[in-house]
Amino acid sequence: MRFDILTCLPALLESPFSHSIVKRAQDKGLAEIHVHDLRDYAINKHGQLDDYVFGGGAGMVLRVEPIAAWMDELQAQRPYDAIIYLTPDGETLRQPLCNRLSLLRNVILLCGHYKGVDQRIRDHYVTHEISVGDYVLSGGELGATILVDTVVRLLPGVLGNEESALSDSFQDDLLAPPVYTRPAEWRGREVPEILLSGNTPKIEEWRHEQALARTQARRPDLLP
Amino acid sequence: MRFDILTCLPALLESPFSHSIVKRAQDKGLAEIHVHDLRDYAINKHGQLDDYVFGGGAGMVLRVEPIAAWMDELQAQRPYDAIIYLTPDGETLRQPLCNRLSLLRNVILLCGHYKGVDQRIRDHYVTHEISVGDYVLSGGELGATILVDTVVRLLPGVLGNEESALSDSFQDDLLAPPVYTRPAEWRGREVPEILLSGNTPKIEEWRHEQALARTQARRPDLLP
Repeated sequence: MRFDILTCLPALLESPFSHSIVKRAQDKGLAEIHVHDLRDYAINKHGQLDDYVFGGGAGMVLRVEPIAAWMDELQAQRPYDAIIYLTPDGETLRQPLCNRLSLLRNVILLCGHYKGVDQRIRDHYVTHEISVGDYVLSGGELGATILVDTVVRLLPGVLGNEESALSDSFQDDLLAPPVYTRPAEWRGREVPEILLSGNTPKIEEWRHEQALARTQARRPDLLP
Repeated sequence: MRFDILTCLPALLESPFSHSIVKRAQDKGLAEIHVHDLRDYAINKHGQLDDYVFGGGAGMVLRVEPIAAWMDELQAQRPYDAIIYLTPDGETLRQPLCNRLSLLRNVILLCGHYKGVDQRIRDHYVTHEISVGDYVLSGGELGATILVDTVVRLLPGVLGNEESALSDSFQDDLLAPPVYTRPAEWRGREVPEILLSGNTPKIEEWRHEQALARTQARRPDLLP
């Protein structure tokens, strides 16, 4: 899977893409992540990218021309399955959408900054608008790191067996049950006896009950 | 506001905290971000931090002792208003919660990894469990970058007037209206005439209508 990411802050994206599972996916050749600097497409030698908002008011808006020039250049090189703009008014990212995105081949991620991009870019180029949550971020860059992480870990071969994504929260509409590891006792606090019993069917039953109870208490909206 | 962040991947957090508004907040002395390496608290000289999950199954769990040692050390240095564990089964982060968090002084962010932390850490130390969205990430680190970004930009003095947070999506239960900037015409696509009229009351009315229409179309759940 290939990601092309357009940002005016490429340096911000350096460390999240060079560690952990996203790094491993790239090392294994399962994901390619190309970060592009919008400044290379500035409209003048001063590096201008943005301008005042039409109609007045606070905040700068990214202009059409630099983004359009980059989009046209990239789309001449290969077809893209999705051109995603990360924006708080987009569709909320949830696990089923991550699953669907993981089936795509070439994806563009457009990161806004300041007050966002000129609406004409959204109308003319963008195919999906996605929000990682109901909060305001300084730009789309952190949303892009979230999207890449959630999607890349679903690509076949990225996670080892030890990390199977299937028992994670949200994959079965239930939150994950509590987990414990050694030591069995810590400062007088013991792990639930059942987990030390070796009785696998009983343990699975306990886990399901715990997952259900946790979901009922915390996120009843997830239950059917 | 002071953040102490515990992670087994400190390098992953480098670039998001050293750019843009989060950097500016630190430069101005309005936010302090301290990233701590869990490996410094490993239980043995092999750097061990995690162990197999009790009861069997895939995935590793972060052990109690390294996290507890760090928590005890930090809490002896100053009082903390919140000890936040970033986890997909936590309370969903939304703008009102960001607003409340921005009033705190000293905050700990605990990043899980693999299958998460031993439940006893959650029971004994953690005061808030927060999820940045209904999707599974490789660890809590990206959630921490999101939380810090959303909260830091709300601290008085961080944003300039030009970037006033008040007109952002979610601050008034409405998505933001479309924005446009120069040029007024691009490839035959013109900006809405009203925005060039100079009639501020009419422009504000148009923006409100657009914000309302967008919210009704995309996120009717946000409306009262």
